[in-house]
Amino acid sequence: MIIAVDAVGGDFYPKNPITGALRAMEENPSVSILFVGPENMIRNELASLEYDTSRVDILHAPEIVTMEDTASVAIKTKPYSSITVGIKAHQQGRCDAFVSAGNTGALLAASTILLGRLNGVLRSTIAATFPTLKGPALLIDAGANLELRPEMYYQFAKMGSIFSEVILQQESPTVGLVNVGEEREKGTDIHKEAYKMLETLDNFAGNIEGKDILCGTTNVFLTDGFTGNIILKFGESIPEMLKLKIAQTMKEQKVDEATQNIVYKLLKESLSGFDYQAIGGVPFLGVNGVSLVGHGNSSPAAITNMIHSAVNCIRHRLNERIVSSLH
Amino acid sequence: MIIAVDAVGGDFYPKNPITGALRAMEENPSVSILFVGPENMIRNELASLEYDTSRVDILHAPEIVTMEDTASVAIKTKPYSSITVGIKAHQQGRCDAFVSAGNTGALLAASTILLGRLNGVLRSTIAATFPTLKGPALLIDAGANLELRPEMYYQFAKMGSIFSEVILQQESPTVGLVNVGEEREKGTDIHKEAYKMLETLDNFAGNIEGKDILCGTTNVFLTDGFTGNIILKFGESIPEMLKLKIAQTMKEQKVDEATQNIVYKLLKESLSGFDYQAIGGVPFLGVNGVSLVGHGNSSPAAITNMIHSAVNCIRHRLNERIVSSLH
Repeated sequence: MIIAVDAVGGDFYPKNPITGALRAMEENPSVSILFVGPENMIRNELASLEYDTSRVDILHAPEIVTMEDTASVAIKTKPYSSITVGIKAHQQGRCDAFVSAGNTGALLAASTILLGRLNGVLRSTIAATFPTLKGPALLIDAGANLELRPEMYYQFAKMGSIFSEVILQQESPTVGLVNVGEEREKGTDIHKEAYKMLETLDNFAGNIEGKDILCGTTNVFLTDGFTGNIILKFGESIPEMLKLKIAQTMKEQKVDEATQNIVYKLLKESLSGFDYQAIGGVPFLGVNGVSLVGHGNSSPAAITNMIHSAVNCIRHRLNERIVSSLH
Repeated sequence: MIIAVDAVGGDFYPKNPITGALRAMEENPSVSILFVGPENMIRNELASLEYDTSRVDILHAPEIVTMEDTASVAIKTKPYSSITVGIKAHQQGRCDAFVSAGNTGALLAASTILLGRLNGVLRSTIAATFPTLKGPALLIDAGANLELRPEMYYQFAKMGSIFSEVILQQESPTVGLVNVGEEREKGTDIHKEAYKMLETLDNFAGNIEGKDILCGTTNVFLTDGFTGNIILKFGESIPEMLKLKIAQTMKEQKVDEATQNIVYKLLKESLSGFDYQAIGGVPFLGVNGVSLVGHGNSSPAAITNMIHSAVNCIRHRLNERIVSSLH
């Protein structure tokens, strides 16, 4: 299996993508890596590292999409970026997947435009894993489509369920529609219409509210990309806010250093589920290919895990399952 | 000043509304209370309590709106409920304000229909105080209007700023538009249009993201009622989730009891800002009157504080300020 890796994606390139990819290769003998990016930069980084050279190749892409570029600017003005060149290589069958910790908007646009959508899919989307008391849940849409039509909720419920089962290995995952109340007539007309379509699914658990998210009431949280993005970023901010708040309290109450250390350790342990590095990356669902994106802040370990996720998507034929679920 | 109090609002009626109201009366000699609800029930509760009888009156309302009633059912089928009778008494000038810990939807509907909107106001709304690292911020709309037109964002920004300054006593409060990114062209067409209108306000600080909420990046968080409701309920669930998570970790790690107690105490202290009881209640903004709603779970102290807030709304002529800001 050849996994193409964006060597200049994320905040810590080329170091993190390259070391993370080499580790994935060590951990899985069936993986070969195709690094995509400026050739010299990649060669320089690789020069000091030890790895199986027979399983590493480089695809030159001189341009770099920054985290600030808008998706349309990235696609139109940087045709030789690692993102465009990498996705094209995947489209042409030169690799089995493309993974990047780079600009999510540009990646989604390139993946959708160049790879196209799977047969029957109305919109491609991005899901995110979300920490809950019961382990990671799946938030879908996590920001790709700000507004949804009812039938998109329905398709996303199916795609999210398959991802949750196959990749997150959750047995018989349930789906909840994020809404302002539990009753079926809650929400906008679009939510009411979506509810009616979702009811026909065996694993639809009804509406869930804001308070159900951290509890992990369902395995899949179904929402439009606007609300999804707000929930996701709000959730990500909880651990840091909490650390600051508790530090403040301990300072005010003149808590001794030994106790402070115990508290910080407990806090770190308790909030470890909020560490997105453990998951690594998520695929764009509905595109005709395997394209994954990770957090800009990805560590080498996050890149390694994103590559393992890509391998799982391929092995478990995620896309074939999505297509057959929609027909 | 006569404050009408819904004696059968919330989960703990008539005890909490009645004891909370009597305390407010003790704390503020200029306050008289008009209890609204089933007369016998109110008399029974008052019988065992000591209070200044010259400042307490009862307005009989035999019907009770439950927390489960939909707003339209409550208004149409229960014309003699404490909510309808109380708001009508306010409309007729028999009291200066109405406060309730009851069904928010029914209260909003009754307030809007019976009291009407202030001159120039497109929609009445409900704001909620939200705990942040920098103290309480104001989330508006907190669930009253699931979808907003751009000019409603603009009006809510003005109403929220006035409330924040006058009632929450925040100096020169800033307003942020909750959005999926900081850049001005982020969000749906409605957000982009709202941004253009908001820019003309001196205190508009631009878009804020999910991660800015707990930090308290601005004093007012402007959002549609759908997203606002999700944020609010999500936020309210954080302390409980955290306590459970840390308890779990301490159990796993066999932390001794003394340390556990220290940790719980620190946690309680740190999360005390999340205690909505301290604020008590929030007014429906934009209605032609003073009508406040509190959490269904309100303690007597929360009721007391809600009455003090009502007094502040009257004293500081909140509604006059809103009307003049819109002209």
